[in-house]
Amino acid sequence: MPAGTLVHLGEQMSDEIHISVIDYGIETVTEGEPATVSDIPDQRADGTAVRWIHIAGLHDVAKIAEVGERFGIPALVLEDVLNTSCRPKIEEFVGGIFVLLRSLTDDPENQHVDLQQVAFVLLEDNVLLSFSEVPAAAFSPVRRRVRTGGGGRIRKAGGDYLLWALFDVVVDHYLRVTDAMDEALSNVDDRLQDRPEMVSAADISRLKSEVTALYRHIRPCREIASILNRADSPLIEATTEPYLRDLNDHAIQVVEAAEDLRETAASLRDFYHTAMSNRMNEVMKVLTCFSTIFLPLTFLAGIYGMNFEHMPELKWQGSYAVLWIVFVLTALGMFWLFRKKRWL
Amino acid sequence: MPAGTLVHLGEQMSDEIHISVIDYGIETVTEGEPATVSDIPDQRADGTAVRWIHIAGLHDVAKIAEVGERFGIPALVLEDVLNTSCRPKIEEFVGGIFVLLRSLTDDPENQHVDLQQVAFVLLEDNVLLSFSEVPAAAFSPVRRRVRTGGGGRIRKAGGDYLLWALFDVVVDHYLRVTDAMDEALSNVDDRLQDRPEMVSAADISRLKSEVTALYRHIRPCREIASILNRADSPLIEATTEPYLRDLNDHAIQVVEAAEDLRETAASLRDFYHTAMSNRMNEVMKVLTCFSTIFLPLTFLAGIYGMNFEHMPELKWQGSYAVLWIVFVLTALGMFWLFRKKRWL
Amino acid sequence: MPAGTLVHLGEQMSDEIHISVIDYGIETVTEGEPATVSDIPDQRADGTAVRWIHIAGLHDVAKIAEVGERFGIPALVLEDVLNTSCRPKIEEFVGGIFVLLRSLTDDPENQHVDLQQVAFVLLEDNVLLSFSEVPAAAFSPVRRRVRTGGGGRIRKAGGDYLLWALFDVVVDHYLRVTDAMDEALSNVDDRLQDRPEMVSAADISRLKSEVTALYRHIRPCREIASILNRADSPLIEATTEPYLRDLNDHAIQVVEAAEDLRETAASLRDFYHTAMSNRMNEVMKVLTCFSTIFLPLTFLAGIYGMNFEHMPELKWQGSYAVLWIVFVLTALGMFWLFRKKRWL
Amino acid sequence: MPAGTLVHLGEQMSDEIHISVIDYGIETVTEGEPATVSDIPDQRADGTAVRWIHIAGLHDVAKIAEVGERFGIPALVLEDVLNTSCRPKIEEFVGGIFVLLRSLTDDPENQHVDLQQVAFVLLEDNVLLSFSEVPAAAFSPVRRRVRTGGGGRIRKAGGDYLLWALFDVVVDHYLRVTDAMDEALSNVDDRLQDRPEMVSAADISRLKSEVTALYRHIRPCREIASILNRADSPLIEATTEPYLRDLNDHAIQVVEAAEDLRETAASLRDFYHTAMSNRMNEVMKVLTCFSTIFLPLTFLAGIYGMNFEHMPELKWQGSYAVLWIVFVLTALGMFWLFRKKRWL
Amino acid sequence: MPAGTLVHLGEQMSDEIHISVIDYGIETVTEGEPATVSDIPDQRADGTAVRWIHIAGLHDVAKIAEVGERFGIPALVLEDVLNTSCRPKIEEFVGGIFVLLRSLTDDPENQHVDLQQVAFVLLEDNVLLSFSEVPAAAFSPVRRRVRTGGGGRIRKAGGDYLLWALFDVVVDHYLRVTDAMDEALSNVDDRLQDRPEMVSAADISRLKSEVTALYRHIRPCREIASILNRADSPLIEATTEPYLRDLNDHAIQVVEAAEDLRETAASLRDFYHTAMSNRMNEVMKVLTCFSTIFLPLTFLAGIYGMNFEHMPELKWQGSYAVLWIVFVLTALGMFWLFRKKRWL
Repeated sequence: MPAGTLVHLGEQMSDEIHISVIDYGIETVTEGEPATVSDIPDQRADGTAVRWIHIAGLHDVAKIAEVGERFGIPALVLEDVLNTSCRPKIEEFVGGIFVLLRSLTDDPENQHVDLQQVAFVLLEDNVLLSFSEVPAAAFSPVRRRVRTGGGGRIRKAGGDYLLWALFDVVVDHYLRVTDAMDEALSNVDDRLQDRPEMVSAADISRLKSEVTALYRHIRPCREIASILNRADSPLIEATTEPYLRDLNDHAIQVVEAAEDLRETAASLRDFYHTAMSNRMNEVMKVLTCFSTIFLPLTFLAGIYGMNFEHMPELKWQGSYAVLWIVFVLTALGMFWLFRKKRWL
Repeated sequence: MPAGTLVHLGEQMSDEIHISVIDYGIETVTEGEPATVSDIPDQRADGTAVRWIHIAGLHDVAKIAEVGERFGIPALVLEDVLNTSCRPKIEEFVGGIFVLLRSLTDDPENQHVDLQQVAFVLLEDNVLLSFSEVPAAAFSPVRRRVRTGGGGRIRKAGGDYLLWALFDVVVDHYLRVTDAMDEALSNVDDRLQDRPEMVSAADISRLKSEVTALYRHIRPCREIASILNRADSPLIEATTEPYLRDLNDHAIQVVEAAEDLRETAASLRDFYHTAMSNRMNEVMKVLTCFSTIFLPLTFLAGIYGMNFEHMPELKWQGSYAVLWIVFVLTALGMFWLFRKKRWL
Repeated sequence: MPAGTLVHLGEQMSDEIHISVIDYGIETVTEGEPATVSDIPDQRADGTAVRWIHIAGLHDVAKIAEVGERFGIPALVLEDVLNTSCRPKIEEFVGGIFVLLRSLTDDPENQHVDLQQVAFVLLEDNVLLSFSEVPAAAFSPVRRRVRTGGGGRIRKAGGDYLLWALFDVVVDHYLRVTDAMDEALSNVDDRLQDRPEMVSAADISRLKSEVTALYRHIRPCREIASILNRADSPLIEATTEPYLRDLNDHAIQVVEAAEDLRETAASLRDFYHTAMSNRMNEVMKVLTCFSTIFLPLTFLAGIYGMNFEHMPELKWQGSYAVLWIVFVLTALGMFWLFRKKRWL
Repeated sequence: MPAGTLVHLGEQMSDEIHISVIDYGIETVTEGEPATVSDIPDQRADGTAVRWIHIAGLHDVAKIAEVGERFGIPALVLEDVLNTSCRPKIEEFVGGIFVLLRSLTDDPENQHVDLQQVAFVLLEDNVLLSFSEVPAAAFSPVRRRVRTGGGGRIRKAGGDYLLWALFDVVVDHYLRVTDAMDEALSNVDDRLQDRPEMVSAADISRLKSEVTALYRHIRPCREIASILNRADSPLIEATTEPYLRDLNDHAIQVVEAAEDLRETAASLRDFYHTAMSNRMNEVMKVLTCFSTIFLPLTFLAGIYGMNFEHMPELKWQGSYAVLWIVFVLTALGMFWLFRKKRWL
Repeated sequence: MPAGTLVHLGEQMSDEIHISVIDYGIETVTEGEPATVSDIPDQRADGTAVRWIHIAGLHDVAKIAEVGERFGIPALVLEDVLNTSCRPKIEEFVGGIFVLLRSLTDDPENQHVDLQQVAFVLLEDNVLLSFSEVPAAAFSPVRRRVRTGGGGRIRKAGGDYLLWALFDVVVDHYLRVTDAMDEALSNVDDRLQDRPEMVSAADISRLKSEVTALYRHIRPCREIASILNRADSPLIEATTEPYLRDLNDHAIQVVEAAEDLRETAASLRDFYHTAMSNRMNEVMKVLTCFSTIFLPLTFLAGIYGMNFEHMPELKWQGSYAVLWIVFVLTALGMFWLFRKKRWL
């Protein structure tokens, strides 16, 4: 089974936070990994238009608070970033947009799905802060596009486009996870058709819970993408709007995929029940056929086991042979009947 | 079973793209099949008002990109045209309307339903581009109407009417597919009533999955037709509006038909379960009747098989005959009782 | 069972169309049955304010087209009138209102429900055209009210009131059909309670399909009545508005009745399953009781059928009598136990 | 079971109508019971501000029509008052508000719920007409408040407050009926837990139908209260608005209670099925245990009942005793196994 | 099981009411516990900006009425405060906001959840009255924050912030209760997987009812929080709005958690049924195997127990041994077959 259990990454606590700063523009990209919040340079590198600060590790409250203070992020927003059981949301505040998401990354090697909270804060002047519980592999393609895509769209666009790119990559990973889960479900479906006795009720129940959990994590992204699409914020430029509309479609598609998964899991359970009750039917038929064949035969044998003094058949020469013929004919007749009725 | 499995046509890759250009007006129709995108003539043929360019084959990204550039189609729209797993959608962009649909064509010969993505881009000046993964047989009736319908509506109307005609033909084919599926379901229903043992749980489950898949492909057309109907675009003339309203009704009808199919499939499954449990009941009754008839008889036979020295009955002349009468009467009595209780 | 299967009346093709023209006013009623469309007089009879033209028979496309041309009905509307599988709808066009409905008439004699498409086109100047597939018995009460109701409301009012009266009579017949079906369902329910073995799964399944079909035909009338109620058309006078509001309530009531029917059919099916599984329980209990009573007795009899040389009981005088007492007591004890446990 | 079946009161026809007129103001209350409609005095008693006319009995169409004419109630409204199968509704007409409700009164003595249609017509100048099929006991508390509440709110307020008081008392009775039904359901639930064999499927099915019927009668009051609350009628004074808001909350609460009842009835049915299938399990286990214990024992006894000449065991002195020991040990071993597996 | 039954606290009547008054500002906190309503000082303590009056005990109608009169709370609001079966609600009145909630407090020691009604009335001039049926432990953290949080937000903010803090603490406790219930459900789930025979249908049914009850109490808070969030009241300052938005998210999260609980309980019931039917299958298989093995063996033994004079096998020397071999081989063959078919 390729799809595995959800593993909450942030639970392996580490007090370290990793900061990476990328300043980029059409021509230039400058990267840095300041050790502390105060080491983040005040000025953007020359010739760069966008600053992307990524902070991995949400356990050290004090440091995150320092980030908040440095960049003027409201306290309530910071609390949501730190509270890893917070519901995904989007919020506009004065001078910024805050997006909180669950990132799901399929990890086929370890047979599980990595779950972590990620947050994006888009500030004025094309500064984007992103937060994750542990370093987020999902963001590397975006980083690569920034580094290598010399004349590409991302280098020409502003922070709002970067927000879109990061959000889109999160939604993309949802699609990979739902695809993997879909494959897992259809594997179990095939096994149910071929060898129903190899599938246990607990397997089905576990898959159903996982699909439900997936759905709960994915569901809010539709609403968030829709709010972002309709947002009338000065931080979002008109050129980015078609991308947000596309993201919205993307989010609708992935939530529909998750809904389809739930339906598939439900019909898998139905099919399991049908398979079980078919097996039961089979068992019952065998029982019935055996009883129905042997009960009358045993009765007949019982009759000639009686000790009455006056039982003429007992003395006849051929009785025993005749009785065997009766036994065999009765059994064959029943067998033929059951075949006709498709019980055997 | 007339309705078969969905077969995704576009999967048989071919790098060739077929371009066909039809320029038509009230009096004239000019057709051409330019080999490359650059061979498409710049000017419409004299006396024609509408240009319809159909491009079959979405695998050669470079050529499609060339089309996009030539006709000024935005990059995001082109990406959706090329991405054959994209959700059906409608989008207005500056100077155009973009409609993306799944085309379903019932292919009774090969016992399957052909599935491919089709896209329509209506541009200014009555130019309509249509895209399909393979040459789309569904569009031939429209082509025929353009060619032959000398004084007909289509030759008088503009590109928006052509868009309507193509969309309508796609919805029409949906209706044929749902009709075929409906027939398949009612065939299985008949078989279930007559010979339930000939229908397997896997048949039912397969039909249900197919109906669900159909529904997922058809469902978005309702929303798209509704948006097109309400669209306030300069590309759509007032005379075309009643047709779009009609298309909207048509789309609602076909989505309702697909919803009805789902309901039918669900009650088919229920009926299958009932049939199964009725068979189980029948089996149980036979088992019970046989056991109930033969257990007491066997017990009686067992009694006179005992070896007690003092069993007066054993010595009586008529015991054996009397016992046979008891056996027969008991069996007949039970049989009568079961008949009365409708167990046999 | 009073409610029967839906029979589509229009399927018995006949190329004849029947035209009847009624011109009426407060004082005068003039009726005529012109043989062809061109025989319809141009002028309304003197002193009449409303003209009602009823056309029965939708198979002769040419004649219906002639009607359309004569009265200036748009082509799209005519197509919907002729297409008997078209979804019920309401449409306003310039100078008219078009209403398409399914008429259901309970026919208790032939044990079925007659189904046909009816269409109403209200034109300017108080002209109302009504179409039906075969002559519609449902409209006779309206015709009678027009003829006889000398000083009545209908003779004083305009074409919009006539439209209301015809629509209302259609909804009225829905209510009769749902009532008949409700009675049929409660008959089956009674039979299920008294003699569950007389009801087959196919009966239940057939009733459920019929209720679903009824619902699908009735459902659209709610939406249509609501649109008509809210319509802001110059063809509808203020004095007719309270009647349309009433019609709207009426339509809501009948659709709710149809929804209730579906619920009733669903719980009938549940009850059928319960009854079946109760019978199964009963069968199982009988089987268990018989087995549980006779298995130990047969075992005991078997013991004394053994041929060991040293079985002291076999020689004792009273053994046989004692064993019989044991048999009877065991059986009675078991019987008492099963009674106590309510298994018998 | 305290909650009983719904009994439609109006079905006991009586052509008598009872008219009672109460004129009241802050200081004065004047009551009268005019025999006929024309006996109702034209003028309100001196010093009174509100007139409440209650008419019990809706069978004499002529007399109700007379009431309508006298007070200027539109014909359509009167028809709804008289049609006792009409859906509950609210309607504003020129100079009045019309409210039609179902009154449900719990009658614990006769073990049933009385059902009748009641209607309120609030007219200008603080005149309120109320109609019921039979004299409505539910309204006595309001009458008492009017008579005795010298300085109370009702005597100071107008007809709109009286309308509120009567509506509120109807909703109050709904709550009593749903409470009684809730108790009936929880009684059956308790019985199901303690003595499931005492509850029949028909009981459960009957309760479910009654809950559904209750729900259908109660459901419309939510919509009606909400429309009344939002009504912008000159007949409703600002001081009454908080009461109408309260009534709206009250109606939401009672409809939610009825919805909860439906859910409770549904889970009662589920629990019944579970209890049934548990009993089935129990029966099956007993059957299996008996068969599994006695089948091998009977087989053993059968072996030593065979008549082979060469069966050494038959001649050994202790065989019989040893076999008894085997019988007992086998039986005990099986019994211990079944206990361990929790089958007995 | 940590989560227990809901216990309605207010049912232990006590006629005593406890009043506590806290006046606080940035610098000062003054607390008092006046014995009667009239002992509440008219003036707020010097230097304080907010007055919080908490009243525990809703049984003494007269005293609560005194409170209402003293603070000008409308009669209808007071009635809702006193009616402990009133639906949770929010209402704005002239000069105040009224919020009515159910407080749920998890009491792990006594294994139950305490339920009581709480009400908040925010008045002008930063006066907040809170009511509870018994002293509400849930509010102590807020009291502590007021007392100790010298420079904290609560001491700087007004009565609207206090209202938020109290509402938020109620919602917080909902989350704790749903978490405890979630744990209880997953405990039962684990037990069902490991030892299904230890879980009874009544346990499942009880859990399901409790989850439903929880949901009904929690559900209204979403609507109330949303109305409060959108409220455009002069009593709510702009600085409190982000907190109310946060509360709204919080309420949505808790209601979703309660909905998830319902789903979990439903799938627990499904899983219980599956486990039951699996056990049934197991029982049936054992029965079938035993019958199928022993029926033919017993028949064979019966044959050689017959008393025919001419049965050659009876005289052969090795018959008995051969028959035993047949017995053993038959039994082993069957056993092997059942193993292969996974019946044993």
